[in-house]
Amino acid sequence: MTDGPDQLAHMKPAEVRKRIREGRLTGPTSGIAAGYMQGNLAILPRSHAGDFMRFCLRNPKSCPVLGVGEPGDPALPSLGVDDIRTDVARYRVFRDGVAGADVSDLNALWRDDLVTFVLGCSFSFESALQRAGITVPHIAAGRNVPMYVTDIPTRAAGPFSGPLVVSMRAFSPADAIRAIVLSERYPLAHGAPVHLGDPARIGIRDIGRPDFGDPPVIAEGQIPVFWACGVTPQMAIGAARPDLAITHKPGFMLVTDMLAESAGV
Amino acid sequence: MTDGPDQLAHMKPAEVRKRIREGRLTGPTSGIAAGYMQGNLAILPRSHAGDFMRFCLRNPKSCPVLGVGEPGDPALPSLGVDDIRTDVARYRVFRDGVAGADVSDLNALWRDDLVTFVLGCSFSFESALQRAGITVPHIAAGRNVPMYVTDIPTRAAGPFSGPLVVSMRAFSPADAIRAIVLSERYPLAHGAPVHLGDPARIGIRDIGRPDFGDPPVIAEGQIPVFWACGVTPQMAIGAARPDLAITHKPGFMLVTDMLAESAGV
Repeated sequence: MTDGPDQLAHMKPAEVRKRIREGRLTGPTSGIAAGYMQGNLAILPRSHAGDFMRFCLRNPKSCPVLGVGEPGDPALPSLGVDDIRTDVARYRVFRDGVAGADVSDLNALWRDDLVTFVLGCSFSFESALQRAGITVPHIAAGRNVPMYVTDIPTRAAGPFSGPLVVSMRAFSPADAIRAIVLSERYPLAHGAPVHLGDPARIGIRDIGRPDFGDPPVIAEGQIPVFWACGVTPQMAIGAARPDLAITHKPGFMLVTDMLAESAGV
Repeated sequence: MTDGPDQLAHMKPAEVRKRIREGRLTGPTSGIAAGYMQGNLAILPRSHAGDFMRFCLRNPKSCPVLGVGEPGDPALPSLGVDDIRTDVARYRVFRDGVAGADVSDLNALWRDDLVTFVLGCSFSFESALQRAGITVPHIAAGRNVPMYVTDIPTRAAGPFSGPLVVSMRAFSPADAIRAIVLSERYPLAHGAPVHLGDPARIGIRDIGRPDFGDPPVIAEGQIPVFWACGVTPQMAIGAARPDLAITHKPGFMLVTDMLAESAGV
């Protein structure tokens, strides 16, 4: 028994997390539980949590904080999450800053000193674009969003530093203007874009070859528009090299109980 | 005795109109009475006023209505204007839709059937850009904004029809994004732009040769951004051919008592 895209779009976040926890929903979360904030995950030892929090506050467009857990506590009540160790479909485990194998739960890895951060995600503003009748190219093509490492530096905090990572969506000029206006209303979902037009100006050499995600969909006459991306903190974790860090696998987000509209301004 | 740009910027609208009325202020109004709405003027016979009002309501980005007078009444109390016949520095007189000589007052032309429309103007959002630290190229160069006739049609109403006219300002990609976000907050000052990037896509053949205003200032790496422009109704008046119509001369606007921020959302 599988659910179609419509059923997944209308599913409540608690039901999504339950199905993930039970291993019945194992794919990317784009388009699931429409209208609710999805989150990027970053779990770090207490020793690094203070610096990471400052890194997020200094880079709010790439790292908008939706929630922070208590040390050792896998629950995030403000986001409706009972157990962060099981409520995401795929986790990425970093040892000394290096990404290793992905895992499907954190039960074997959990420690009493781990602090959970949940950061906003662009999926939320994408649903606002769709409600406004704007076609989001990678969603229409059934792909993951293309993401690129730029030459724009983040603002460092302690050992956390590195380049800004951006996601790209291409639009007609008129839709690009509307996408800018609409996304700006969702500061917790990365807000307005950081760049549009020539990719080389932010250090992207080949727009056809993203560093993360799927190849882009760009029609003739469309303009590429670039938003700060929640993969940015994964680069900073690579620089900081904590003995253990855990994120989601890109595209496999935490589905929260926070309404996307409540993240707007 | 002349006033410098700073004194003109801080002058109250009533003082600006008084000086214009007395023939002591005769130039364009860009940068004058910062923080107050400036308006495009359109004065039409009562026979055409209903259709023109519908034209404005159908084309709100180019023709945002700030105020409408009573037939034959030269005052616009809601905008602080005592006498529209003398409070603008240069008027353009159209006979049967054809622009003739510019005049400096309307005392000899006024009729009991004339209805005054005041439409919003981009000067108001330009001051918001400047407060945000964004350089507006034509202002920095001491020029009038470049304006272009596009191949985008307006929505007709009765005899009023014609192409959309746009104004152009060029910015770095990051400033273009901020300019879009900021201008969208001022729907009575034309709101968000209608186009960015390739001028040919909206029928502009040579961006170096505007149809109205001064040649553009575009630095390397800057993107042209196009806003609906208050010259659009002048084109529609040309199509409608009323026996008499009066507008301002482009750049020589009505300075109103309406605070620019009160025109925001």
